[in-house]
Amino acid sequence: MQQSEQEQQKEQVIAQNEIPDLIINPYEVVNNSKKQIDYDKLIQSFGCQRIDQAHIDRIQALTQKPVHHYLRRGIFFSHRDLTQVLDAYEAGKGFYLYTGRGPSGDSMHVGHLMPFIFTKYLQEAFDVPVVIELSDDEKFFHKSETTLEEYQRYGYENAKDIIACGFDVNKTFIFLSSQYAGHMYHNICKFQHAITYSQLRGIFGLNESDNCGKVAYPAVQAAPSLSSSFKHIFGKDEVMCLVPQGIDQDPYFRMTRDVCYKLKVPKTGCIHSQFLPGLHGFGTKMGTTDPTSAIFLTDTPKEIEEKIKKHAMSGGGMTKKEHQEKGADLTVDVPYHYLRFFLEDDARLEEIRVQYGKGVMMTSEVKKELITVITKIVTEHQQRRALVTDEIVQKFMELRPLSNYPPKKNN
Amino acid sequence: MQQSEQEQQKEQVIAQNEIPDLIINPYEVVNNSKKQIDYDKLIQSFGCQRIDQAHIDRIQALTQKPVHHYLRRGIFFSHRDLTQVLDAYEAGKGFYLYTGRGPSGDSMHVGHLMPFIFTKYLQEAFDVPVVIELSDDEKFFHKSETTLEEYQRYGYENAKDIIACGFDVNKTFIFLSSQYAGHMYHNICKFQHAITYSQLRGIFGLNESDNCGKVAYPAVQAAPSLSSSFKHIFGKDEVMCLVPQGIDQDPYFRMTRDVCYKLKVPKTGCIHSQFLPGLHGFGTKMGTTDPTSAIFLTDTPKEIEEKIKKHAMSGGGMTKKEHQEKGADLTVDVPYHYLRFFLEDDARLEEIRVQYGKGVMMTSEVKKELITVITKIVTEHQQRRALVTDEIVQKFMELRPLSNYPPKKNN
Repeated sequence: MQQSEQEQQKEQVIAQNEIPDLIINPYEVVNNSKKQIDYDKLIQSFGCQRIDQAHIDRIQALTQKPVHHYLRRGIFFSHRDLTQVLDAYEAGKGFYLYTGRGPSGDSMHVGHLMPFIFTKYLQEAFDVPVVIELSDDEKFFHKSETTLEEYQRYGYENAKDIIACGFDVNKTFIFLSSQYAGHMYHNICKFQHAITYSQLRGIFGLNESDNCGKVAYPAVQAAPSLSSSFKHIFGKDEVMCLVPQGIDQDPYFRMTRDVCYKLKVPKTGCIHSQFLPGLHGFGTKMGTTDPTSAIFLTDTPKEIEEKIKKHAMSGGGMTKKEHQEKGADLTVDVPYHYLRFFLEDDARLEEIRVQYGKGVMMTSEVKKELITVITKIVTEHQQRRALVTDEIVQKFMELRPLSNYPPKKNN
Repeated sequence: MQQSEQEQQKEQVIAQNEIPDLIINPYEVVNNSKKQIDYDKLIQSFGCQRIDQAHIDRIQALTQKPVHHYLRRGIFFSHRDLTQVLDAYEAGKGFYLYTGRGPSGDSMHVGHLMPFIFTKYLQEAFDVPVVIELSDDEKFFHKSETTLEEYQRYGYENAKDIIACGFDVNKTFIFLSSQYAGHMYHNICKFQHAITYSQLRGIFGLNESDNCGKVAYPAVQAAPSLSSSFKHIFGKDEVMCLVPQGIDQDPYFRMTRDVCYKLKVPKTGCIHSQFLPGLHGFGTKMGTTDPTSAIFLTDTPKEIEEKIKKHAMSGGGMTKKEHQEKGADLTVDVPYHYLRFFLEDDARLEEIRVQYGKGVMMTSEVKKELITVITKIVTEHQQRRALVTDEIVQKFMELRPLSNYPPKKNN
């Protein structure tokens, strides 16, 4: 009994981090500091690793392509076992990418696109299979606002937005967990068997009046990180998995990796992104309850312009004079931060950083530039999404081999 | 918060019964009284209903067949909503039977056969579909002695013993839950969503260091009681389900029925059996750890003879004189009790009850009669089982319509 209490304490500590004003777990991100999160401290607290220049250079060398600006700018900044994943790739064994989304009926916002934009880059750069889980069951257990059937329907709709990010249908398998669970039920059982209730409680803060689905589900999210969950793609091969994810999902995959160790299969690799703040400033949330909090993928150019002009929190001076004297405070400025995420041109971004930081460039100019960038991204996304038919969604969801597995030997 | 505590208390009470020396839940049956359990008190405590003569007469009238001695003798003695099931049958809507087994590598004993013998009788009498779940996942979560793959293999082996009870392949669907879970995952989710952790804890006595599978699994046992879990048999029809079971499983199905109510589908009907005691006496267990505790389906006639002669607890007098004076105490006598379960001839059983009870008949004579009866049952079972090939098991497990659904209109 004593050991089990010690274990429990250890597990609860795992779920915490020691940074004041910051709560991060898979179901809650609260940043009360109103500034950019100290990601170095978070790395230390979580026990993951910085993605350093050597990693970036190696990715560039292996893929023979310029690395994505999310990597160049440290937006995907942290990892677990990325080196082992790259080793496997270099050895010709390949790896696969796994990411996902909890489907909701609300419009997706630009922040939701990030993991998919990045996964799509990795798919192209490494030419590896991608699997994407739409966890309608998770939403049913955790949100419980409607029926499972309705969450399933949201999943199909959200799949269209994901597909519109440009995934290759021959290299990508998308599935609803409610439909696919049977195919990976053996692995679901193995995860459920290997995780105790108290461990889960430590990670997710469950309480006893929670429904049993919340206890059952984590295994459903973990199972796709084992290649044996996709026999139609990998057959009997044991293939490494890399999961691009927001850093808030790390506790989930820490648990997953512990179980991999017990099951004697390769530990899931992780690559973590920073958070895109809400328009109202660092520490604010994006959501449909306040439409001015985020740019949604369904916004019109006029809505985008108005939201950024009126609602994007500025770090500029209160007056023109003050701004010219002190410059903009980039640590709280939302438009600049959004450009870090969405403006691809490094030279122009640096120019803005310097000129805006010095007070030479005005907030209105930076916002104008952001409006142009985001409007282009959203408009193009809408055009691509309009072309995604139900038949195309079905193709992505079909059980079939993918064209880039097994990897060709000329890597 | 207060209400949730009240609920919790209420739920814990549900899992208890107020009979001294008796613990009954789906994972534990302990009878410290050393006598036949007081089933009337148990019915009162659990809140289920006696099967009365009117039920028995109605079953005989509906099926136009003599009712099984398990019903005549009150071995299947208690029910929930049996009347509604018979109403549905009489109205031509039909119903289906659901039973199951947690597969283990140990030999099955004669006690394990009871629910299958009775279900087979009901199948023949009512001509209704039967579904049988082999819960390899449950054993993996609860016993954890070997791998999930091995429990699956046990499932196939146990299926042979079940099939040997004489089920009609055209009217029976047998499935391993690890293989079939995907087909009923929607219903699994709905049960997991509708049950709280504290409710389960009340029923099963879970603790926090238990694995998550123990929390996830009850929904997997509950799901087959909804006809929508078997689209290949029932299509979109909503068909009532009747579950023959040991009374120890009742808490499971009380929970299931509560959820049926929430889901607005017909509540699962239940029909409960008494326990077959171990050879060593009432309150003793049957198990492979002590081979003399039970008659196994693999026992030879010689082993059966020896076990009953040497180990079946007698209620007879200590000496011939005492026996002739006082007669046998039938409330503790195992051979007589076994004859109640396995000797079909009512007149002969009554004769034994009277003569043995008066001390006219000796224990050795009763035991000899039991040896004859059980040896025939076990030997014939072995002969039928030897004929069950892997191909036959596969046929029972194939997804297909069953020949007796929908029911013919000439009921």
